[in-house]
Amino acid sequence: MSFEFLMLAFYRYEKERNAQNKEKSKTGRKRMKDVVSLRRTAVLSAASVVGEEEKRGPFGAAFDEWDASGRFGADTFEKAEGKMVGRALSLALEKRGDGVLPEAVLAGDLQNQCMGTAEGLLPFGFPHLGLYGACSTATEGLLLAALLVEGGFFSRTAAATSSHNAAAERQFRFPLEYGGQRPPTAQWTATAAAAFLVGSVTEGGVLARVTRAMVGRMVDGGITDASNMGAAMAPGAADSLLRYFADTGTSPKDYDRIVTGDLGKEGSALLAMLMEREGVVLSRHEDCGVLLYDEKKQDIHAGASGCGCSASLLAAHYLPALKRGDVGRILFLSTGAIMSPGSVMQGGSIYGVAPVLCLERP
Amino acid sequence: MSFEFLMLAFYRYEKERNAQNKEKSKTGRKRMKDVVSLRRTAVLSAASVVGEEEKRGPFGAAFDEWDASGRFGADTFEKAEGKMVGRALSLALEKRGDGVLPEAVLAGDLQNQCMGTAEGLLPFGFPHLGLYGACSTATEGLLLAALLVEGGFFSRTAAATSSHNAAAERQFRFPLEYGGQRPPTAQWTATAAAAFLVGSVTEGGVLARVTRAMVGRMVDGGITDASNMGAAMAPGAADSLLRYFADTGTSPKDYDRIVTGDLGKEGSALLAMLMEREGVVLSRHEDCGVLLYDEKKQDIHAGASGCGCSASLLAAHYLPALKRGDVGRILFLSTGAIMSPGSVMQGGSIYGVAPVLCLERP
Repeated sequence: MSFEFLMLAFYRYEKERNAQNKEKSKTGRKRMKDVVSLRRTAVLSAASVVGEEEKRGPFGAAFDEWDASGRFGADTFEKAEGKMVGRALSLALEKRGDGVLPEAVLAGDLQNQCMGTAEGLLPFGFPHLGLYGACSTATEGLLLAALLVEGGFFSRTAAATSSHNAAAERQFRFPLEYGGQRPPTAQWTATAAAAFLVGSVTEGGVLARVTRAMVGRMVDGGITDASNMGAAMAPGAADSLLRYFADTGTSPKDYDRIVTGDLGKEGSALLAMLMEREGVVLSRHEDCGVLLYDEKKQDIHAGASGCGCSASLLAAHYLPALKRGDVGRILFLSTGAIMSPGSVMQGGSIYGVAPVLCLERP
Repeated sequence: MSFEFLMLAFYRYEKERNAQNKEKSKTGRKRMKDVVSLRRTAVLSAASVVGEEEKRGPFGAAFDEWDASGRFGADTFEKAEGKMVGRALSLALEKRGDGVLPEAVLAGDLQNQCMGTAEGLLPFGFPHLGLYGACSTATEGLLLAALLVEGGFFSRTAAATSSHNAAAERQFRFPLEYGGQRPPTAQWTATAAAAFLVGSVTEGGVLARVTRAMVGRMVDGGITDASNMGAAMAPGAADSLLRYFADTGTSPKDYDRIVTGDLGKEGSALLAMLMEREGVVLSRHEDCGVLLYDEKKQDIHAGASGCGCSASLLAAHYLPALKRGDVGRILFLSTGAIMSPGSVMQGGSIYGVAPVLCLERP
């Protein structure tokens, strides 16, 4: 990995920012900042829908619905993904049960032109803002949904995302029927969708408060192997954590959990190494890609991936844990690998990006 | 066109919203709203970069840079698109010239997984929020960039988008070398990129104030022909304009121009018809897809399309006109066609979406 490239980008940005902030503190202008603080915004409801492999995993009992066939009543895998995310949004609305419609839905997925979420959410007729953040979409969507509420622009917003193993494999690699051998670093794209409702913390029945948010930067670690997404995403996650800790003056011990999206085993080890080189011991780290499947019973190689991986575990595991008070404060950063089959074929590398949310118990 | 479907969706949403608003006015809760008002946000700088066909068009002299080869120094058309959008952002920063870095960049394009903007913007190292709004991305990006500033979360944001004729044709239809015949309803994907800087209106040197914003809804008019995007997008534009006028109590005569993105000749005629059926005479309407090329001299059939079409004309024509005071207030709605080659092959239709901005002279 081109570790030097990462650190070069990091320091270049920091240098410019610090120079600007020094200048601004002289003139009394506002400092540039990485991390935005929120006071009045919360996740109100969340729901998840998964496929068979996810149901068989350690968190199987926590998901709201599942379909062993992976079809969800549709005749293609791509349309099945749409059905899945539509069902997740319906469930999130039902769970909340107050009949308030979201005034904006922020959603995206891995399919070309994000057609999974588009087809799934069309029937709702809600105002729609399409996102593409690859597997970071759950956090990107929640971040924007939260800021739109925090800014007082809308009283209720929603975020939704999805991935489908069979749809993603044939789009990014090979159709499943081809039976391609997967290398040890390969991850298994989760068949999973989740939806979240965001509103004011004063509305009550809150799952978790959103207290801080930071936009991620694309970081190129020089990885060109589409079967090693963990390594491609680790530099983006490292960059985000280093910026976040620097800007907030916090460290891993200030959080009960630091949860990354889908680095898998390979990427998680690389992230710890990158952080350690910068003098940060990454304690209390959990990765949704490592957690979603049972390594001993399920043949999934380096772990899970896909937009639905971190989204479904956030909905089914982390948000309920925050609501119950089992954990008090988590840093949540879904990790995205920005690439296309075409860009990789043209010799491009895969960029990592990781927006960050700080979630606290209500 | 399934006109009834459009009106059904429109009225269903309106009915639910009106019922909620009636309920809320009794209980004193805030009304649901479509349109957000802004007080302190402005577009500070804009730049555009185009290809040869756009340079030959009526607005050729207004664009900041162009490359007759369409290569922009890159060895593939996809990478060329990245170079183009990177150059547009550099120019927007240079034009502003105050050295302030954007704290978030909102960007997307038509390439699978939005790799055009990703590759083009990576070298800047700015915090990045990826969007997918098809050809509506210019307005979607500016809308979010403006709300993030208006909410006080960031002091400077940027929006950028691009499209490249050769990259889009081979991805969505056929490689240019194939020499496929284009039907009369086909539009010509613009080779164009634009970038915008957004900040506080008090910073001075403003191009235009952003005074209102509305998120678009996806509307399915039943069009399945990927060579008739105008017809597919017209229902989305009609839905947005009807909602916008209803919520603000304004009508076309309150605006100097109502500018749609890339409906082309076909879509513009359909939009006027759809509006007229609802009792709204669409006066003062201009469509960037109709304006970008010279119909008599350039063989482009129904007009221009692509994210870069409305983005480049906004940057090169409408924003300067607002700054000069030639026009006082425009409604700007880039129009997106939400589809993928895969979704169309699986029998899906093409959805229209059109977020709206009200832009006023400084």
